[in-house]
Amino acid sequence: MSKIVEEFNEYRGKMNEVILSKNNKVINRLFNLDTNTYAAGALPVKTKEMLGLVASMVLRCDDCIKYHLGKCHDEGITTDEMYEIFAVANIVGGTIVIPHTRRAAEYWEALQEG
Amino acid sequence: MSKIVEEFNEYRGKMNEVILSKNNKVINRLFNLDTNTYAAGALPVKTKEMLGLVASMVLRCDDCIKYHLGKCHDEGITTDEMYEIFAVANIVGGTIVIPHTRRAAEYWEALQEG
Amino acid sequence: MSKIVEEFNEYRGKMNEVILSKNNKVINRLFNLDTNTYAAGALPVKTKEMLGLVASMVLRCDDCIKYHLGKCHDEGITTDEMYEIFAVANIVGGTIVIPHTRRAAEYWEALQEG
Amino acid sequence: MSKIVEEFNEYRGKMNEVILSKNNKVINRLFNLDTNTYAAGALPVKTKEMLGLVASMVLRCDDCIKYHLGKCHDEGITTDEMYEIFAVANIVGGTIVIPHTRRAAEYWEALQEG
Amino acid sequence: MSKIVEEFNEYRGKMNEVILSKNNKVINRLFNLDTNTYAAGALPVKTKEMLGLVASMVLRCDDCIKYHLGKCHDEGITTDEMYEIFAVANIVGGTIVIPHTRRAAEYWEALQEG
Amino acid sequence: MSKIVEEFNEYRGKMNEVILSKNNKVINRLFNLDTNTYAAGALPVKTKEMLGLVASMVLRCDDCIKYHLGKCHDEGITTDEMYEIFAVANIVGGTIVIPHTRRAAEYWEALQEG
Repeated sequence: MSKIVEEFNEYRGKMNEVILSKNNKVINRLFNLDTNTYAAGALPVKTKEMLGLVASMVLRCDDCIKYHLGKCHDEGITTDEMYEIFAVANIVGGTIVIPHTRRAAEYWEALQEG
Repeated sequence: MSKIVEEFNEYRGKMNEVILSKNNKVINRLFNLDTNTYAAGALPVKTKEMLGLVASMVLRCDDCIKYHLGKCHDEGITTDEMYEIFAVANIVGGTIVIPHTRRAAEYWEALQEG
Repeated sequence: MSKIVEEFNEYRGKMNEVILSKNNKVINRLFNLDTNTYAAGALPVKTKEMLGLVASMVLRCDDCIKYHLGKCHDEGITTDEMYEIFAVANIVGGTIVIPHTRRAAEYWEALQEG
Repeated sequence: MSKIVEEFNEYRGKMNEVILSKNNKVINRLFNLDTNTYAAGALPVKTKEMLGLVASMVLRCDDCIKYHLGKCHDEGITTDEMYEIFAVANIVGGTIVIPHTRRAAEYWEALQEG
Repeated sequence: MSKIVEEFNEYRGKMNEVILSKNNKVINRLFNLDTNTYAAGALPVKTKEMLGLVASMVLRCDDCIKYHLGKCHDEGITTDEMYEIFAVANIVGGTIVIPHTRRAAEYWEALQEG
Repeated sequence: MSKIVEEFNEYRGKMNEVILSKNNKVINRLFNLDTNTYAAGALPVKTKEMLGLVASMVLRCDDCIKYHLGKCHDEGITTDEMYEIFAVANIVGGTIVIPHTRRAAEYWEALQEG
């Protein structure tokens, strides 16, 4: 696995463990609900992950973007499809999204390399 | 057509005309680019409109939400699918999105009534 | 009850009913979790409602502000305390919060009138 | 004066009075500091009002936009200049700014009518 | 003192000095007003720091979060209380706040270690 | 050239190349439109770059801020003028903008050193 992908996953896993260990009911249930949100339903997982990605992009959260890029990659989304998601995010959210798109593009390349 | 749908479309049309009549090249080209963003490509129109909707919801722009709700309705999106989009928007964007979801739900009902 | 308070509560109640009736599990559980968040725990309800209010103010959601103003009023928060919350919101969030503070001040006066 | 301009000024004046009457030191000093921010300095008032406007547009606060539109009008900014400010706001902030630009365009027309 | 706490304080101190040395009246008075905002008044310092923290979390500013975490630690806020603040921030602001909560949790642990 | 200026320009250039190489029409046209936005028109380049900077500051995008700081430096903006732009951004956007102002101040010093 690429180094930036590995580092992201490692820190995310480690800190989620710290957070969940405090047993705050609201937070732990929110984490659980977050997982359920992207499960297959009326819409397939692939569509939901695209929705999660575009929402993360316009809200400009690099870590959320990385997480959904990983999931989109697992769902077999192609680079052409990915850049159409990037296009929607940049048009709706404006050029303020471009720096996040740069980092997203870098992470997407890293995911392709496996 | 329902009154709230009609009023939205009318104001939107009237003011777009005022804006475009000023012939600011950047704005007029951005309006044009905005239309192209949602055209069929690697992703179908239906998916792109869902992406535009969820982006509008987490950025909490009622008018943008109404616009994409109208387009999603044209694309034949079902109420079950719609509420899964609402779910992603509310989980990613938080309860701050709920009041916009209320107005979105009202507009969606109005669109169903035709 | 003051007219602006009544109108807010009525629309909120009516649309929550529409939303919950669709039985989207994620949304319905999020609404439930939202209620639990403000229950007494390590922090008292009063503090939690102040936290919910200041968060709503800096995110500039008028309906969320109204909701928490109502709850803060129920908790017996004084006008001096309220304006210190407004002060934090306006300093952290900037003068962009002022128009929302105007509407919050109007709603707070309405709540005092009972 | 146009009705939408008059209504905006009236509500703004009335509620500012309510807020300032509570004598919260932080808020009252922030209101004062806000006024000083746009006074002539190394940059002229006209430039500062344009800065205040574009900031209000990308943060999507209709009332702040109206306030700075009024000031820009007082400073003799032309419609061509105004639409170049709109262009920067819409490019940086994205199409999510368009609905606010519609309302800004309407208010700008009202200001021209005097 | 933990390394991440020390580094944050050092950079903050150094750059505040650069900024204040330019003698821009508005900025210097805003810095001063910022300090006054969190002084004891109708609400105690502890409550105000909690308000500052939750506002910083939903606006997703890591440095502001670190600053208020330090102040909350000085005020003797417990880990259980802290996670209830985190809960409000994550419910109101959504899962987009989670990555900031991870970094907040890491900084909070560092503060406990002294 | 200072190290932080060089690193920013290098990463920006490298990733823009990756993005543009994918030939997504909407993104490539948006990049082009972005350049046109800041060209001389009814307003001079200097004013437009100040507008781009203040918009980037209130939206709190460090990379966008760096980009416009570089352009403002090219346009001969003085440090006194720059801090008046910072003042508008911090008053409109609130103290949440301060950490970004610290990094902007650091980058501005680096640009002065050439």
